[in-house]
Formats: sequence, structure tokens, C-alpha cells
Amino acid sequence: MPQTPPEDVRILLFDVFGTVVDWRSSVAREVAPFLARHAPGVDPTGFAVAWRRRYQPAMEAVRSGARPFTRLDILHRENLEGVLQESGLDPAAIDAAELDQLNKAWHRLDPWPDSVAGLARLKQRFLIAPLSNGNIALMLNLAKRAGLPWDAILGAEVARAYKPSPAAYLNTAEILGLAPGQCMLVAAHNNDLAAARRAGFRTAFVPRPTEHGPGQKTDLAPEQDWDAVAESFPALADRLGCPG
Amino acid sequence: MPQTPPEDVRILLFDVFGTVVDWRSSVAREVAPFLARHAPGVDPTGFAVAWRRRYQPAMEAVRSGARPFTRLDILHRENLEGVLQESGLDPAAIDAAELDQLNKAWHRLDPWPDSVAGLARLKQRFLIAPLSNGNIALMLNLAKRAGLPWDAILGAEVARAYKPSPAAYLNTAEILGLAPGQCMLVAAHNNDLAAARRAGFRTAFVPRPTEHGPGQKTDLAPEQDWDAVAESFPALADRLGCPG
Repeated sequence: MPQTPPEDVRILLFDVFGTVVDWRSSVAREVAPFLARHAPGVDPTGFAVAWRRRYQPAMEAVRSGARPFTRLDILHRENLEGVLQESGLDPAAIDAAELDQLNKAWHRLDPWPDSVAGLARLKQRFLIAPLSNGNIALMLNLAKRAGLPWDAILGAEVARAYKPSPAAYLNTAEILGLAPGQCMLVAAHNNDLAAARRAGFRTAFVPRPTEHGPGQKTDLAPEQDWDAVAESFPALADRLGCPG
Repeated sequence: MPQTPPEDVRILLFDVFGTVVDWRSSVAREVAPFLARHAPGVDPTGFAVAWRRRYQPAMEAVRSGARPFTRLDILHRENLEGVLQESGLDPAAIDAAELDQLNKAWHRLDPWPDSVAGLARLKQRFLIAPLSNGNIALMLNLAKRAGLPWDAILGAEVARAYKPSPAAYLNTAEILGLAPGQCMLVAAHNNDLAAARRAGFRTAFVPRPTEHGPGQKTDLAPEQDWDAVAESFPALADRLGCPG
């Protein structure tokens, strides 16, 4: 398995939810005060997981062409109403401004402990940017709060396509004026890396074995011979020859 | 003239060509070796100014609706062929790869001496991003080379509209999830600020009296009561209450 990328990689593009930040415990923390007020019996982590469960189906409506491109903040807001109903709450009975504020839980996700230090090292050798399905405002607010030192905010809203659609990767490379092979996706998810590789990207796998909590069964190991595999962002910086 | 913005400004959006970077002397420097090879009699600064003269007419074709949105790298490349012909050179007789490389002169512009230090201070209190007519790749490469510490790369390509069209400002605010009044444009050009103000933005004027070389006649003074006026980015940081 080649552990050093070709010399011509210019930019590292990062999956964010799960790879750079811990969405599960962060969303649970953010929804806890809301649930304590409105539904004291509902478990915050369960609520976070149920909210996230609606993420792929909502994007699939866009990927399939059934719906025009719609940014993730809007999909999250729709999904929030669904999960509230699922939890026995009537969204129409709650102040809309309070729900808008709750929806911004996704703008306040904590990075994994190694993310910021690893990105700072990787940035010394490469351009670094998110290639997330999160929209620009979400990614920008999240980065400012967490101190993620991106060179740019790219992703689905810029490419006008949700991963793993090929256009999400190909449009990003085209916008950057780069060949796909000059772009490397860094992700904790084998399916994201597989789609990036099909688009011609280089690939780096950084497993996040607690993304889904204790007992996680998926994405614990590489499913293909990704160009790089590392257990953390600083370890990836070592693999890619970045200064310490 | 109010010198302190309302507390609700969240992001400073910057004009770049002329406001953050010195395009004129930088492009002259970048074209000089090319001209020495192909047209030793042509003055590099004159060539830079002639290239820039084609900038507004090219964007006007997009603003008027005569042409779909086309990123600036492509307009610059077309304009380069025009200015080569104007200089007595046949673009078809020159290797296309050499012209592509020359076109990237606009990715290698030097910041004004105060830009980087001022942005670093402004970034401590505000989100900061370019709102330039330059495309994403151009702005990203320019920022990486010059060390401009942007939080995001915004601008015409993200908004799908060229300044001073209202959509360039309004779409940017909408993408950010902000009201126009939460956005402040920082620019050395009164007409850019006037358009931003019409869109509801706050405004800051930082004159750059040598942008057009010695004898500059325009944009030496504010033409309206802009929300802030400062002679440099660090002075703007002082006005806006940013930590030293």
C-alpha cells in the first residue's frame, strides 16, 4: 500500500462530519438544554443519532434529481421537524426562532482532539479545505469556533452537488483549476474515498473508531489500498512528509 | 461620519485587486520576462495597465446578461490575447502553455505592506473573506502565496455575479446566512462601496493612493460618509476596536 502520495498533490480536501469533528457528542450536547425544556424523557444522544439518520435520505432527493440543489442548513431544518415529531413533539407548537437556533447545533461541532494541530502541519505543505456536504455558512461558523485553519471553504454548496455524486469531486477540481489527481480526499469513510477514487482523486483514510459511539462496526479499517492510511491527522502529516 | 460599526457586523468582506494587493506592479513584474523574450520594446507596466483596461468591459458582458457567468481566469485569458495583439504580437504564434502560465500572473500579486498584519488583527474580531471578482482558484493561490489569512474564499464565482451587480453582495450575504447589515465591505474604490451600501452592507474605505501609479486622480478620498475610513488595515483594526 503506497503511503506517500505523488509529488503532484496540491490540495487536501477533507470530509468533515465524523472525520474532522465529532458530530455525535457535539449535537447531543447542543440539543440537551432544548430537550430538558420540551421533552425531558428524550435522550440527547438518541435524538442526535435520529437527526443524523435523516441526513442521507434528504440528500438523496437532490442527488437523484428529484429536488434542485438545496443547502444542508435547509435539509437539517426539515429533518429537525421530522425528528421532533418522531420524538412526540409538535414542531408547530415551538417558537420558530428557537428551532432555527437549535438547527445551528451543526455549526457548533467540536473537532477531534488531534484535528487542529494536524491541520496546521498539513497546511504547511498543502492547500487544505473542507469538501463536506455541509454548506458554506455551516462550515465557516464551525471552523471559526473550532479554530480549523482552512485555506478556503469548498464543498457541496460550491460544487452544487452532494457527495458521493461524481460531480461533487469533479466540479471541485475544476473550480480549483487542478486535475483530479492533484487533489487528495481525507476521510474516515470508505464509501466517500471510493467515490473520490472513481473521480480520479488521491485518497487518505483516517479511521475515527468512536464516531458512532461504543460498538462501532463500520469504517474501522481500510476497504481498499488507499494512497495513505493514518490513525490521526498528525500521523497523516508524518506520512505525507509535512514539517513537524 | 460614524467611525465605529454597529455591534452586529459579523464579517468583513474585502475587495482585493487594489485594496488588498498591488496588482499593477505585481503584474508588471510577472510579465517582464515574457516581454523580454517576445517583445523587448513593450513596457511591462504599460502592458499590465492595458491588460487591466479590458477587465471591466469583459465582466460587463456577464453583468448585462449577454454572456453566462464566466470565471475571471477565463476572461483574463481572453483579454491577454487582446492585449498581445494590441502590442503587435500574434497569440497563435506563442505556445499555449506559456500563455496559460502568463495568465497566472494574476495569481501572484503582492499584498500592500500593511495587508497581512492588518488582516490578522481584524480576524480576531470578525470573520474575514475576499468579496472579489477574482475566481476561487485565483483568490486561493494568491492568498496562499501572500499569506492572507482568510476564513473563507467568497466572491463573484460563489455568488455567480460580478460586482457591482447587486446580486454579488446580496447572494453573498444570503449564502452566509446573514442580513446585509451584518456584512461590511472594505474597499479602496468608492463605486464598489456605493453598490455595497445600496445592497444594505456596511462600508469601510481604505484609500490606496498608488494603485494606479504616480499621479492617481481617483479614489483618493471618500465620496460618501462611509461607516469607517482608515488609511491602512491596521488603522481600520483600530477603528473597529480589534485587539492589537
